[in-house]
Amino acid sequence: MNIEAFFKITYGLYIISSAYEDKLSGYVANTAFQVTADPARFAVSCSKNNFTVGIIRQGKAFSISILKQNCSREIIGRFGYHSSADTDKFKDTNYITGQTGAPIVVDDCIAWFECEVEREIELDTHVIFIGRLVNNDLLDKEAEPLTYAYYHAVKKGVAPKNAPTYIKKEEEGEEKNAGKMDTYTCNLCGYEYDPEAGDPENGIPPGTPFEDLPDDWECPICGAGKEDFTIE
Amino acid sequence: MNIEAFFKITYGLYIISSAYEDKLSGYVANTAFQVTADPARFAVSCSKNNFTVGIIRQGKAFSISILKQNCSREIIGRFGYHSSADTDKFKDTNYITGQTGAPIVVDDCIAWFECEVEREIELDTHVIFIGRLVNNDLLDKEAEPLTYAYYHAVKKGVAPKNAPTYIKKEEEGEEKNAGKMDTYTCNLCGYEYDPEAGDPENGIPPGTPFEDLPDDWECPICGAGKEDFTIE
Repeated sequence: MNIEAFFKITYGLYIISSAYEDKLSGYVANTAFQVTADPARFAVSCSKNNFTVGIIRQGKAFSISILKQNCSREIIGRFGYHSSADTDKFKDTNYITGQTGAPIVVDDCIAWFECEVEREIELDTHVIFIGRLVNNDLLDKEAEPLTYAYYHAVKKGVAPKNAPTYIKKEEEGEEKNAGKMDTYTCNLCGYEYDPEAGDPENGIPPGTPFEDLPDDWECPICGAGKEDFTIE
Repeated sequence: MNIEAFFKITYGLYIISSAYEDKLSGYVANTAFQVTADPARFAVSCSKNNFTVGIIRQGKAFSISILKQNCSREIIGRFGYHSSADTDKFKDTNYITGQTGAPIVVDDCIAWFECEVEREIELDTHVIFIGRLVNNDLLDKEAEPLTYAYYHAVKKGVAPKNAPTYIKKEEEGEEKNAGKMDTYTCNLCGYEYDPEAGDPENGIPPGTPFEDLPDDWECPICGAGKEDFTIE
């Protein structure tokens, strides 16, 4: 299997949301796509380890919000690297409530689709929900959607462990890092702090060792603190 | 329903191929995506009007080849706007034969995935095939994948009528074209020849009316002749 071939598949990045009774739930996904045109239907592939899978099953509906390219790191951190089981992701998020009762995230998003679940396809690790479109809207005509390639290349993001596209990281040879400052990895989102590159967007110049980062420095992807980083 | 919202969904463009007995079949799709990671599985949504749907059903396998951004118009024309029922799309195409017997297009492609069909999900107009990965490869590490957005914006392509993402074109008001040279539309692929813009890549300067195009001019997307164009 050639792992690099997987990186050539084009995906967008979306927030998938659902509700059951008073519980709102949502997560970041790259596998959302239209499967029929008339009527319009969408499919999402959701890990069984993902709290939202149970909410969609019970609520029988989901929404897909398309993240914009210049979305904040906070929204990806909030929805992508925490669980709705123990985090109220909607508390500080602007959303509307759809006809189905599903919340629809509008912060940092450019369009949305609300679907009623018609079918559930059970696979071993994931459930594919097929939903019929009940409503949708465009929020920002001019903005570009965030793509997974852009997220990977520019925002240095990696897939969370529950994603269908998650790939285990290869171990690197020890000699590769000989004589270099240590690289640290965020345990929440997988972001790597490379001291050679620093984090200039957040005021950290290239050449800053991890140990010298200010105590209140946060992971630029998910907002985790320094204590959530470990050496590679 | 807001049609423009659909244009914000990010897709790649792929050639999906299959074989049954001596018959090879393939088409261009934007709905191919990974649905589980371990084992790796892919899903494709295929119109029942598409000849390939029957070949995948019988052959129980399919391949996904990722088109590169600067792929030729010929390959999209050949695979995207003709039917394998009456066209041998593989005659002038370089391909390899996978373990499953499915052909795998390598011309103008940067990576491929070969899958055995595990499940068929029947919808009214389409079938979703879920296939387990049996083999894959990367053909060009440096090349960028062709995205649907790029195809739409730069190559001026439109979705064929069988695509899940096909959207009927709105009628334009007659007054819009008053005093203008006529725009002609390709009946095969939907490309619009705009006389104001011409077709500079193929030696046609801006301001050339459709009627003055050389007799051997071809649709820059699918290779159709002038006789396949009608006035809007």
